Amino acid sequence: MSSGTQRPRIGIIGTGAIGGFYGLMLARAGFDVHFLLRSEFDAVIRNGLQVNSAVHGALALERVQAYCSVADMPPCDWLLVGTKSTSNDGLAPIIAQASAPGAKVLLLQNGLAVEEQLRPLLPEHLHLLGGLCFICVHRVEPGVVAHQAFGAVSIGYHSGPAIDREGRQAIVEQITGMFQSAGVESHAMADLQQARWQKLVWNVPYNGLSALLKTSTAPLMADPDSRDLIQALMEEVRQGAEACGYALPPDYPRQLFETTEKMPDYKPSMHHDFVNGRPLELEAIYARPLAAALAAGCDMPRVRALYQALAFIGRHKG
Amino acid sequence: MSSGTQRPRIGIIGTGAIGGFYGLMLARAGFDVHFLLRSEFDAVIRNGLQVNSAVHGALALERVQAYCSVADMPPCDWLLVGTKSTSNDGLAPIIAQASAPGAKVLLLQNGLAVEEQLRPLLPEHLHLLGGLCFICVHRVEPGVVAHQAFGAVSIGYHSGPAIDREGRQAIVEQITGMFQSAGVESHAMADLQQARWQKLVWNVPYNGLSALLKTSTAPLMADPDSRDLIQALMEEVRQGAEACGYALPPDYPRQLFETTEKMPDYKPSMHHDFVNGRPLELEAIYARPLAAALAAGCDMPRVRALYQALAFIGRHKG
Repeated sequence: MSSGTQRPRIGIIGTGAIGGFYGLMLARAGFDVHFLLRSEFDAVIRNGLQVNSAVHGALALERVQAYCSVADMPPCDWLLVGTKSTSNDGLAPIIAQASAPGAKVLLLQNGLAVEEQLRPLLPEHLHLLGGLCFICVHRVEPGVVAHQAFGAVSIGYHSGPAIDREGRQAIVEQITGMFQSAGVESHAMADLQQARWQKLVWNVPYNGLSALLKTSTAPLMADPDSRDLIQALMEEVRQGAEACGYALPPDYPRQLFETTEKMPDYKPSMHHDFVNGRPLELEAIYARPLAAALAAGCDMPRVRALYQALAFIGRHKG
Repeated sequence: MSSGTQRPRIGIIGTGAIGGFYGLMLARAGFDVHFLLRSEFDAVIRNGLQVNSAVHGALALERVQAYCSVADMPPCDWLLVGTKSTSNDGLAPIIAQASAPGAKVLLLQNGLAVEEQLRPLLPEHLHLLGGLCFICVHRVEPGVVAHQAFGAVSIGYHSGPAIDREGRQAIVEQITGMFQSAGVESHAMADLQQARWQKLVWNVPYNGLSALLKTSTAPLMADPDSRDLIQALMEEVRQGAEACGYALPPDYPRQLFETTEKMPDYKPSMHHDFVNGRPLELEAIYARPLAAALAAGCDMPRVRALYQALAFIGRHKG
């Protein structure tokens, strides 16, 4: 690090695609990164971590500071959490145990109110930040991640000991600076809730439809009916955000749609979750936005229909 | 027949579940029934027709007047058409060839505007009637039909040489009388379009969701999310019908919902069509009602979302 301050110790909780990619990038840049692993522990100890990136080439981290129990981890100054929001209930004790006093916790999850769910379960001395990853990445096998496109992380301060604007800003700039020095685009977000709604404009149509229709982005963008449906879903999310007080740029849905047209074919995480019989992140990505918009007087009928169809297949899979 | 008039000759076009069930019931009641068959011809000639009915018991028609080419059929006074609406383009010449002069054609199909699609292709001397079958029936194998519940046929006159109300009514009563004398519940419908919209209140949710979610009625009626979605879809269809000038009884959706709760578990035809890689009846059941309602100023957002999802899987199956 160029700042000359003491090198922060970073813990990665959940070394799937997100934790694996960002953890490896930070470790390769010289940061002191410690990985908490479960099912992937043996493979990572044996073979290290690997990111096959269409952007950065083939990256490997051969000697990984890996742990299969949080009790073995040293206390970390930063914790990057890349687990599914469906397992957030069991997350707080792990985070608390892995944290140094006054540590900063960055929650890299999609959906709404994931911080509000976790906050009451965390010790008060911890800072909680939210991060939104604009990235096409998936786990190929234990310890191996494929990175297809993008990579930017938008970060906002949620809650904790930093009370004033300057203190919060300094903490956000600390982590965006760490990402940037590791070659990862990263921005401070003025309003974390607004940023979460913006991300939902993408996640609501593409995550859900990729699971429901068992497909990926390229076929969805090539079919006239799914194109119309995606645009209608995006517009409903924009209206829901506006009703909740988060006015997005009017052409933001169109921009995201056009960006997705230029993307390589991509299977969102919910597709993988469904195909592999894992729980779907329906609470954070659908149920909470629907409830928030409805409470603000805005129905999102297509989003609700999609949610209900996903809830059905989530209960009846396999 | 009790009327003492000359016994009418009945032709069945499309001996799947619908044609097989009603044709067998009429033949067993002593009517002169002739079946046009394609893939099932050999099996029916060899084994006859069989209906395993939860209502009527095991019924068999051993000697079937079956044809594999319309050119071999005698001219019929009545034609009952039970083919899929997706093959209506090729239907008119077959009907014309199988018809006696002034014959009556009863189209036993779901959806909207199936008569309007067929009418311009038919000779003017033919009467065209529409029929809606309230029945749980499916084809088990060639020549074998399973009948799970119900069976009523609602019939209305569509178009043809009968110009006045009395003439049309007499023709409708002729066929409802034939069905009734064969043990099949049958009613005259004052307004065929209204009846088609009423039937859509059932077909729109259950046909589509059974294909999209690869399921049947019992799981759909047992899950809180699919229950809500079904009721919302039903209400949208009711609103669409009303916008088009067909005010349904306000509690008609609730009645259909409750009837379905009491039904045996049933896989609607669209489920079988999807699973077997056949075309889905999306034009008649979704696209035309959506266009008609939209032209009348009524959007049906959940129905449209369901249609678009079905159109996608219809193009990407297999």
